[in-house]
Amino acid sequence: MNNFEFCNPTRIVFGRGTEARVGAETAVHAKKVLLHYGGGSIRSSGLFDRVVASLKGAGVEYVELGGVKPNPRLSLVHEGVRLCKEKGLGLVLAVGGGSVIDSAKAIAMGAVIDHDVWDFYLGEGEPKAALPVGTVLTIPAAGSESSTGTVITREEGLLKRAVNSDLLYPRFSILNPELAFTLPAFQVGCGAADIMAHLMERYFTTVRHVEFTDRLLEATMKTIAHKAVEVLASPRDYDAWAEFMWAGTIAHNNLLDTGRVGDWASHDMEHELSGVYDVAHGAGLAVVFPAWMKLTMPTDPARFAQWASRVWNVDTDFWTPEVTAREGIRRLEAWYHAIGLGTRLADLHIGKDRLDEMARKCTDGDRRTVGNFVKLDSKAVRRVYELAV
Amino acid sequence: MNNFEFCNPTRIVFGRGTEARVGAETAVHAKKVLLHYGGGSIRSSGLFDRVVASLKGAGVEYVELGGVKPNPRLSLVHEGVRLCKEKGLGLVLAVGGGSVIDSAKAIAMGAVIDHDVWDFYLGEGEPKAALPVGTVLTIPAAGSESSTGTVITREEGLLKRAVNSDLLYPRFSILNPELAFTLPAFQVGCGAADIMAHLMERYFTTVRHVEFTDRLLEATMKTIAHKAVEVLASPRDYDAWAEFMWAGTIAHNNLLDTGRVGDWASHDMEHELSGVYDVAHGAGLAVVFPAWMKLTMPTDPARFAQWASRVWNVDTDFWTPEVTAREGIRRLEAWYHAIGLGTRLADLHIGKDRLDEMARKCTDGDRRTVGNFVKLDSKAVRRVYELAV
Repeated sequence: MNNFEFCNPTRIVFGRGTEARVGAETAVHAKKVLLHYGGGSIRSSGLFDRVVASLKGAGVEYVELGGVKPNPRLSLVHEGVRLCKEKGLGLVLAVGGGSVIDSAKAIAMGAVIDHDVWDFYLGEGEPKAALPVGTVLTIPAAGSESSTGTVITREEGLLKRAVNSDLLYPRFSILNPELAFTLPAFQVGCGAADIMAHLMERYFTTVRHVEFTDRLLEATMKTIAHKAVEVLASPRDYDAWAEFMWAGTIAHNNLLDTGRVGDWASHDMEHELSGVYDVAHGAGLAVVFPAWMKLTMPTDPARFAQWASRVWNVDTDFWTPEVTAREGIRRLEAWYHAIGLGTRLADLHIGKDRLDEMARKCTDGDRRTVGNFVKLDSKAVRRVYELAV
Repeated sequence: MNNFEFCNPTRIVFGRGTEARVGAETAVHAKKVLLHYGGGSIRSSGLFDRVVASLKGAGVEYVELGGVKPNPRLSLVHEGVRLCKEKGLGLVLAVGGGSVIDSAKAIAMGAVIDHDVWDFYLGEGEPKAALPVGTVLTIPAAGSESSTGTVITREEGLLKRAVNSDLLYPRFSILNPELAFTLPAFQVGCGAADIMAHLMERYFTTVRHVEFTDRLLEATMKTIAHKAVEVLASPRDYDAWAEFMWAGTIAHNNLLDTGRVGDWASHDMEHELSGVYDVAHGAGLAVVFPAWMKLTMPTDPARFAQWASRVWNVDTDFWTPEVTAREGIRRLEAWYHAIGLGTRLADLHIGKDRLDEMARKCTDGDRRTVGNFVKLDSKAVRRVYELAV
């Protein structure tokens, strides 16, 4: 196990009706906030009105900024930064899923600096401060409600880049599983794939003696594997959603990689897919991850066999761990299909014509490798994309 | 799953050599602190000198208060409170195990009030503030390094009582598994039994739809079951200690009971044992818990069978869950024996003469029941003690 530091200060308020608490939680930090959200679904569901009523009840003023799209855009972040500065706003309240929260985190960083917040996404400097962020989560998926990360896409060149900073842990996150009842099935499937990916990225590591976090990760993967299927079959099953939502948060709050180093190549490779083709992140991951596994499994068949046995209940072939491992990958693919996702580029209507371009962008034109479990250069990245054709 | 709130702000600094960080972590909060510890072992090991050097290096002054004993006493807490007030100390730094940390938390509460801190332990009022507490953990066991709890024994009447408050989460805890290398085997066994008890108290619940936290608890129980045996066999095995220590912290940091209600009757019953007889807490738990299980198993054999199957690898008897459950209890007893603990009152040299007295004290003279999984009155508590004879 590696040395580590861990401190996740996000206050989780979890359960039925908890959005009524948003005013009180917000007022602890600021009396004038940016209310940031996506499209019209939070209006038609009545959530918007409930949030606004709670803010008003707590004496919190707000300025609205809607319109966040999946793969959230830098231009809207700039708009939010401008509003925060002009109006002297003290907190960014994200009501929505991972895209809204990631956009809110970007605005929170941008609001306290004089240069373009995109600099941080390019790796130029690190944030030294940020406005506090609060969230009301509507889509269990990205884990951004209790994570240090934000991923933003710059329209120019469709460049998708991430920032991680302890400053970006939301101060509070309100998680009401009922808010997920009305999600479209495709979005549920994408969310499940994203959560599973967060767990698998952490699971496949070269760090030894990580039995405890292995087991915690397996416990969470099993939960997501079961509950994703249940909530798709019964979209109003509160209990199944509650397990799914809480597991989705824990999957990405940094507890499960204490003492180990995750891989993250599949996320990097998917960012190019969704940057270039604007596909849903989870749908892209369901295509990239099995292909990545087929390429990398031979480097540590035992780890893949353990995963196949413990998460997917594959009978162990004690003589040939590769057999167990391959059956695990097959069951992962079957699970993606069961939750309504394809596992091939063709399922996303993506051909072979831009694989080279994506492989080059993913590795910054061959100036870096991606992944830690196995380090992939642009040639290896291209092989993964080819395995996904 | 129940609604819940969760926010554990303790900063964990984990790994080899991390005690060198204590000065810097302390200086964030205070420049003049109470250095609180137990006996001579931290002096003979050199830890005391390393901690003091780190404090001095960070410009932190300290006042010493050693002498904390297992089942920490109120009189020393009073002494610590007096020192904090007289010298204007701003943080209580606990260097030791759970007893030292619990004592530090009591001092931290007492230092900011005018009345006796014992009032809180009697349930009279709740703490509204406390000095910050920091820890350097030397004994993985109580989980106090990242918990809200403190248990203190008042010498008069040997009354052992607990306080829980979010104010008592330590601000930081430094966890270096190397510091556990020199623990006596009996203390290691007691620590393992305490950690396992924290997990079992949470596991046995009447709340339904808690599959996720069930699995996290099982993952942690399996880790402790394996690693306790390994560290006893190889006391200088850093990797085994690291898993054991981190699992011991997670076992009691409140993550694993999110959305569920634990039982805690066994802890209450053990507190009477160790209050009256001054036995080690873990040794007492190894006696009380199997007896409690024998009494309560028939109320939910399925939960016991799941535990037996998933934690102890018992073959499932699908027709008769009681058979599976009983074999799980038997394996738990065998595990206690394997880590050097007895499972009978006689092993602690305790007879039958004071069972009534303990049962009455445990239930405040029959004015309350203990436990949530099954509510036990004084008669039922007495039956548990009898099953442990």
